[in-house]
Amino acid sequence: MSVRQDVLRVAQAARDASRQLAKTRATTKNAALLGMAEGLEKGRKHLKHENEKDLAAARHKGLSAALIDRLTLSDKVIDSMAGGLREVAALPDPVGEITGMWRRPNGLLVGRQRIPLGVIGIIYEARPNVTADAAGLCLKSGNGVVLRGGSEAIFSNIAVAGILTEAAERYGIPGGAIGMVQTTDRQAVDELLKLDDYIDVIIPRGGEELIRKVVQTSRIPVIKHYKGVCHVFVDESADHDMARSIILNAKTQRPGVCNAAETLLVHRSVAAEWLPTTAAVLIEQGVELRGCPETKRLVPGVKEAVDDDWYAEYLDLILAIRVVADIDEAIAHIERYGSLHTESIVTRDVANARRFIDEVNSSCVFVNASTRFSDGFELGLGAEIGISTTKLHAFGPMGLLELTTTKFIGFGDGQIRS
Amino acid sequence: MSVRQDVLRVAQAARDASRQLAKTRATTKNAALLGMAEGLEKGRKHLKHENEKDLAAARHKGLSAALIDRLTLSDKVIDSMAGGLREVAALPDPVGEITGMWRRPNGLLVGRQRIPLGVIGIIYEARPNVTADAAGLCLKSGNGVVLRGGSEAIFSNIAVAGILTEAAERYGIPGGAIGMVQTTDRQAVDELLKLDDYIDVIIPRGGEELIRKVVQTSRIPVIKHYKGVCHVFVDESADHDMARSIILNAKTQRPGVCNAAETLLVHRSVAAEWLPTTAAVLIEQGVELRGCPETKRLVPGVKEAVDDDWYAEYLDLILAIRVVADIDEAIAHIERYGSLHTESIVTRDVANARRFIDEVNSSCVFVNASTRFSDGFELGLGAEIGISTTKLHAFGPMGLLELTTTKFIGFGDGQIRS
Repeated sequence: MSVRQDVLRVAQAARDASRQLAKTRATTKNAALLGMAEGLEKGRKHLKHENEKDLAAARHKGLSAALIDRLTLSDKVIDSMAGGLREVAALPDPVGEITGMWRRPNGLLVGRQRIPLGVIGIIYEARPNVTADAAGLCLKSGNGVVLRGGSEAIFSNIAVAGILTEAAERYGIPGGAIGMVQTTDRQAVDELLKLDDYIDVIIPRGGEELIRKVVQTSRIPVIKHYKGVCHVFVDESADHDMARSIILNAKTQRPGVCNAAETLLVHRSVAAEWLPTTAAVLIEQGVELRGCPETKRLVPGVKEAVDDDWYAEYLDLILAIRVVADIDEAIAHIERYGSLHTESIVTRDVANARRFIDEVNSSCVFVNASTRFSDGFELGLGAEIGISTTKLHAFGPMGLLELTTTKFIGFGDGQIRS
Repeated sequence: MSVRQDVLRVAQAARDASRQLAKTRATTKNAALLGMAEGLEKGRKHLKHENEKDLAAARHKGLSAALIDRLTLSDKVIDSMAGGLREVAALPDPVGEITGMWRRPNGLLVGRQRIPLGVIGIIYEARPNVTADAAGLCLKSGNGVVLRGGSEAIFSNIAVAGILTEAAERYGIPGGAIGMVQTTDRQAVDELLKLDDYIDVIIPRGGEELIRKVVQTSRIPVIKHYKGVCHVFVDESADHDMARSIILNAKTQRPGVCNAAETLLVHRSVAAEWLPTTAAVLIEQGVELRGCPETKRLVPGVKEAVDDDWYAEYLDLILAIRVVADIDEAIAHIERYGSLHTESIVTRDVANARRFIDEVNSSCVFVNASTRFSDGFELGLGAEIGISTTKLHAFGPMGLLELTTTKFIGFGDGQIRS
């Protein structure tokens, strides 16, 4: 079978299944999700056996320890996949919700009702746990899914998807609902991105390079997130201890993720007192600092930041620091260098808090909190399928609701237009 | 100046203006909209003078009377553009609305706040009134706009945009907010569709061919609507008079628009009694009927429908008719041949009404009402910038809300992640 035919077959089956899934009740979907969780736990031995094939190939290819770690289906990872599916089962079903209803002057009762998007395409890199996470969220929201994982995890992904499909079918979910592209041929992604008659949206999960390639190739709409250049702005009136605790958390609690802070902006009038002591703590925590001239003057030994530093998503223990004249300069800096991901102001001034919230249009804007709260679970969405830093359809962390849309519904008693 | 530079300059100016527009208060925007309306009225003579250049060229090229009619800036059209701007001024400002707010277990107060999309690109064909309509809706929703109208209306469009910009500037709106691509070079559209750093979404308004070209070329997300193959299903229990009145209205009240009905589905058990009399009325109204074999049997002289008829958007006084065995067959027909636009069931049966609403996932689904209500004004959105028959971001008629998105906002008192 050609690559094109293989991909088309998976997408068509997902599209067919999506019609039935859209009208499947929550009780059935939840039972299937619990069955899928149990399937993964009971299939532990099989999963590890298949995963070992990927690991052997990875070791043979000399992949880094970090990559091999992400690839490994340990007991802990299997438990967490199963746990994730159970959590999704416990979430409310978004499908069918009437989000509003109003009566028109002619008596027509009009409203909006939530429906699934249809078929979601997920293109992702090494982690095989994404297979279970994405399949669970798509199923719960009534969508078919077409999964295309990285070739490094192909045996693991096929094993996970096989167990999920088998379990779902036992509850009457059509087998095509959880589609997996099984060829590792690179052409498969190109073919997938042409199928706008079968797939409604593509969510790529991976590095910036993968995402740019998908955006440039795809005929299907893409929900994307290139990078997170997140800022913390310490305002004139900031509580010093709170500001220190927030930047430490935002930078060091998990530096490799997109909602970690990359640039610290400090109001000039607190810089002299606050910055040297804070810099000392950051350096003690292993953070490399790169500063503007004013920062260098206040904290001797800091490396000079160049223009690229203000655009940088380090994903590492590196922090760019700039002293700014006021909130206007801070907002202008974020507008110029930011990536629309997440920004936080530390302030005691209500007017400045309000200005920051109203004028900074990144996907998450916080007052007196760490940038690390920009996350589907932390924001209370119950789950996260990805994050969008473009404004169309979804902006910021995406949960189950973002896998749905609304249609208009109307109830009349014979209304016609005149 | 090259085409590329010309387009880039307009888009950059709109992007710059959009930052200020996003924080402009409703009072200012509304005053500007009223000023723009007045400007059009006062500029009537100039508008007609410029419009005459387009009309002369159109007559010279031998364009059809219908096209010339759509191109003409009559007093009535100018009044209606001004009236439209005043109506938009009277609508509530969507920007800044907090659409929800909740408290997390750690005390963080989290919510969603509505913000503009940024810059909207509108690509449209002959009608110069779209220039004013689109500019008004984008300004009200805090977005910059880049307008690219048809070459046939270039003098009219430049005149309208010039008056709007001059009026808006008098109220402090930056001049670039209402951007108009002034070259008629066809390459301009291709250049425009590359500017994903400056334009957030493209809304094409025109025929299917224009829209397909835009979708295939664009690097910017497109909100699109190919066609409206709208269905009316007359169920077994339908009130006969109501069903007749609805199909007559849906087909003949304005046959050239996308929410007019194109296919009538009739339940077998009412067909013998209801269809011949209804067909007679439709034929009397000048409607050409194309039917399935059963329809032909019941209504002698009806032309036989071929497969293409079930896919057809006639936009004319032609109606395809199919007799179906039951609601399942009706829903299956809509699923197979429909365009996800608008469908209506005529029924007295509450279970079937419910099934139709729940199982038909077109952008508008009505019970006992004409398909012609699928319209931003009729649904109570207050305005319409276009219609989407794809599910991402917007589905169905789009009003001011669809020109916005939401960001997450969070208020803490020092929360950090552990």
